[in-house]
Amino acid sequence: MFSGPRTVFYISDGTGITAQTLGHSLLSQFEGVEFKTISVTFVDDASKAEACLAEIRAKTHKGEHRPIVLSTLVEGEIADIIGQADALHVDLFRGFLTPLEAELGLKSTHYVGRSHAVVDTPDYLRRMEAVNYTLNHDDGLTNRNLDKAEVILVGVSRSGKTPTSVYLAMHYGLFSANYPLIPEDFERGALPGGLEQHRDKLVGLCIDSQRLHNIRSERRPDSVYASLENCEYEIDSAKRLMTRYGIEWLDSTTKSVEELSAAIIQKRGLKPVMF
Amino acid sequence: MFSGPRTVFYISDGTGITAQTLGHSLLSQFEGVEFKTISVTFVDDASKAEACLAEIRAKTHKGEHRPIVLSTLVEGEIADIIGQADALHVDLFRGFLTPLEAELGLKSTHYVGRSHAVVDTPDYLRRMEAVNYTLNHDDGLTNRNLDKAEVILVGVSRSGKTPTSVYLAMHYGLFSANYPLIPEDFERGALPGGLEQHRDKLVGLCIDSQRLHNIRSERRPDSVYASLENCEYEIDSAKRLMTRYGIEWLDSTTKSVEELSAAIIQKRGLKPVMF
Repeated sequence: MFSGPRTVFYISDGTGITAQTLGHSLLSQFEGVEFKTISVTFVDDASKAEACLAEIRAKTHKGEHRPIVLSTLVEGEIADIIGQADALHVDLFRGFLTPLEAELGLKSTHYVGRSHAVVDTPDYLRRMEAVNYTLNHDDGLTNRNLDKAEVILVGVSRSGKTPTSVYLAMHYGLFSANYPLIPEDFERGALPGGLEQHRDKLVGLCIDSQRLHNIRSERRPDSVYASLENCEYEIDSAKRLMTRYGIEWLDSTTKSVEELSAAIIQKRGLKPVMF
Repeated sequence: MFSGPRTVFYISDGTGITAQTLGHSLLSQFEGVEFKTISVTFVDDASKAEACLAEIRAKTHKGEHRPIVLSTLVEGEIADIIGQADALHVDLFRGFLTPLEAELGLKSTHYVGRSHAVVDTPDYLRRMEAVNYTLNHDDGLTNRNLDKAEVILVGVSRSGKTPTSVYLAMHYGLFSANYPLIPEDFERGALPGGLEQHRDKLVGLCIDSQRLHNIRSERRPDSVYASLENCEYEIDSAKRLMTRYGIEWLDSTTKSVEELSAAIIQKRGLKPVMF
């Protein structure tokens, strides 16, 4: 039996993000199988569908398993062309639009590539504003306009504050600031100036000291900053400080930015705009 | 017939991102229907499922349409509990895992909340590095390490460079820099210093002058910077400059960051790490 990687095509009439996200979730349920994924985006007319079909055929080699095709194709004609491939073809739209149409008593618009084409809606504009806000309030850059923040992440350097803030802004449209906790704060035993008045918006991030040591060593090898001893000191001190102020924290050692963001929204009862 | 908004529950044993993304795509196909969406995340055991079922029932009011439940629940037991709700229940996993299991000749791991829990993989670490790189190379902050960039966006102020760069980094793990084109560049008729040697990585962003005028006016009303005349001048000059250097551009007037990012990847043949 052939045992190389399985080829998976994500095919979409738009950006491919929906097919990729759901496909990634589904495939991650199969441990030990190696997948080779190929994304084909903006397949929005019959001639592009024919070209895509040719590509699937060209990349399917004799003796290999047939490929898996995961698609989000609104137009039936395009889906039918792709369906001619010798593949396991799962269209993520077809299976769900039909029951939704029945439930809503409506035909879907079959408007291709629609789901991410919403640049003039209040939600989209708010997401873009949130990204700009977050970049201007990254890493304690400024105390100004912190009253506009919906959440302020605190934690030691390299504990994951920046990517988590950016994710909260980009994906959920939340105005997210972040502020580093540094040795001077620990010596004073107090939060950085200007944060205390926003205590109800603060969420802490912690991280395992060994992992922090590894991350910091990539950046500044053999420095005091990166030493295991200093990492342990900073994390212990940060936890004491957060305990003192009653700030809840999450652990970024084993949680991705997606999980941290979803957990922060759930814990703080925040209202994301995206969905 | 009752005509208020339809209530949609996104229910997940993890972050809910997969359910929300696919759900958003599906619902956007129904024009004129107002949806009220409620996300319930981390429903990963039977007692949380019971609580979630109670929430669905509490929020379903007599005389209204029954709600729509879109879920990504790996465990059959949890899905069965949610299935007791009087709702159109579509589980996005169940319909797809079964054919995939048959195709692969394997049982899925049924490991709950798995798809976004991958913080120590090379792909995840690369995404986080890309976000840090992009924030350090936002808005022409520095010329250093531009050889590490996989793409460098150029365009006038507020044409969408920053959010697009951030999206490319966060979602696709691409090292993305961005550089503003400013009046001094137009007067000199030359790209900002240090960019010419990276010409093969440059992608332009353009935007309709009226829309740019609106965006800039929010920030600095009644300024020369925001005036329609100046916006027209800057955009015309930017297009001339890009034409001169053979830089392709995309239009952010009608394209979201998701679409711009997917189009940039397609046009430049970039290799994203995420999927």
